[in-house]
Amino acid sequence: MAHTQSFIVNGSFEQTVSPLDRGLAYGDGVFRTLVMRDGMPECWPQHYQKLVADCAMIKIVCPSAELLMSDLQQLFLPDETAIAKIIITRGEGERGYAQPAITNPMRVVIKSAIKTYPATYFSEGVNLHICNTPLAAMPLLAGVKHLNRLENVLARMEWTDPNITDGIMLDEHGNVIECTAANIFICFSDTLITPKLDRCGIAGVTRQRVIDMAHLLGLTVKIEHITLPKLLSADEVIITNSIYGAFQAKSILQTVWSPTSLAADIRKILKV
Amino acid sequence: MAHTQSFIVNGSFEQTVSPLDRGLAYGDGVFRTLVMRDGMPECWPQHYQKLVADCAMIKIVCPSAELLMSDLQQLFLPDETAIAKIIITRGEGERGYAQPAITNPMRVVIKSAIKTYPATYFSEGVNLHICNTPLAAMPLLAGVKHLNRLENVLARMEWTDPNITDGIMLDEHGNVIECTAANIFICFSDTLITPKLDRCGIAGVTRQRVIDMAHLLGLTVKIEHITLPKLLSADEVIITNSIYGAFQAKSILQTVWSPTSLAADIRKILKV
Repeated sequence: MAHTQSFIVNGSFEQTVSPLDRGLAYGDGVFRTLVMRDGMPECWPQHYQKLVADCAMIKIVCPSAELLMSDLQQLFLPDETAIAKIIITRGEGERGYAQPAITNPMRVVIKSAIKTYPATYFSEGVNLHICNTPLAAMPLLAGVKHLNRLENVLARMEWTDPNITDGIMLDEHGNVIECTAANIFICFSDTLITPKLDRCGIAGVTRQRVIDMAHLLGLTVKIEHITLPKLLSADEVIITNSIYGAFQAKSILQTVWSPTSLAADIRKILKV
Repeated sequence: MAHTQSFIVNGSFEQTVSPLDRGLAYGDGVFRTLVMRDGMPECWPQHYQKLVADCAMIKIVCPSAELLMSDLQQLFLPDETAIAKIIITRGEGERGYAQPAITNPMRVVIKSAIKTYPATYFSEGVNLHICNTPLAAMPLLAGVKHLNRLENVLARMEWTDPNITDGIMLDEHGNVIECTAANIFICFSDTLITPKLDRCGIAGVTRQRVIDMAHLLGLTVKIEHITLPKLLSADEVIITNSIYGAFQAKSILQTVWSPTSLAADIRKILKV
């Protein structure tokens, strides 16, 4: 197959994106990335619920679950395992920030090949960079996976070393918030701590699932501000997203951690 | 003519936007809005220079002025007066924030009908809202007219009253920064003050032209932080953009200003 990616726009394989779409003009929309396993979206109720909630935060009416599921079933084979990205925008608009009187949200579903990771990511963990690009405080949009992601783009430009898997992003006060494409947990004894995302950051579905299920591992979860020194003094650091589930940090700056079973235990409760 | 808008993508009338474009995915691009008068772009050197500078801030190679001018000449008739919006994105990308090894920036030029304003906007001024949506501090991107504009979208949702022309946006400390679609100047005696845009806001071409030419009106320009009480105590408040040039504020909250000739004088030096 020549193309590893393909897409469906508003349920049609013929459509592309209008140059007048407000997703392009202003990043006026939201998105999700999830695994299609054997033709079915993993954790669909959680992903759809988050899509609806994120749309509501910017006053977009989210397309129905049935419509999106139909798009997924058209784009993916019944036994296919791949990555689905869903983008919902406010749709086309006239020039200017004001919403059109009538909006027709646009939906795009994009297929990409499932990502394979080196075996050492699972057995030893991953190396993380500390990003210089700060996350701005935007309380009205904190937690929302919207399309205004230039900060993540700039942060991801900071390293080219293929041995670095992701970069930790801090807010302007130096608090740890997330990675460019993952949420973050730190562990002290039997307590997991993950940053408060009330001023910036994306509250991912996998983060929420770990919060909800950590008790299965005998762990208590706290949601609070985390400084960089605190992170570096943790027993371990875990990063999570919907594609790989969880990886342990092997190194951050000069700090190195020995492999433990925690990330594997978390992947197990997530069933990733 | 059925459509008031039309567009050209990468120099072609047949192309639309790829669903994989990073402008849609992340707002990974910049834009400009300017007047085409009698088929020619107004203040083209300034607009093109700003486009190049904004692209450089996010490490996109801006298409050449010749290429963009060719797009404009294809889209607009030789004697046409209308509004041109130019969008430059990083182009298509694979899934994930990392830049592709080879990027092909995408360019879109969109035509819209020239906007006509009520005569009272010119003779008396305009009513302005004070927005509750704050502008987040993003020093790395301050001044840049990039495609991450959800704050402006949310701010513009705050009013539906057609008698309000624009809304003033403040930073998180309550400093006046700009309007949703204009820059702002306040006047005390023979001094114009416009906000510092080192932490947020868009540094518009018309703002810069007023700064450069105010001496023609015997005015001195200061660039400094402006609090809301200071703005409300000004002799007058002027908003500027590339479409209408300059309008005086007639009212903001309970504060009302009598018409003076300043906005007309500024439009005269701008030749709008």
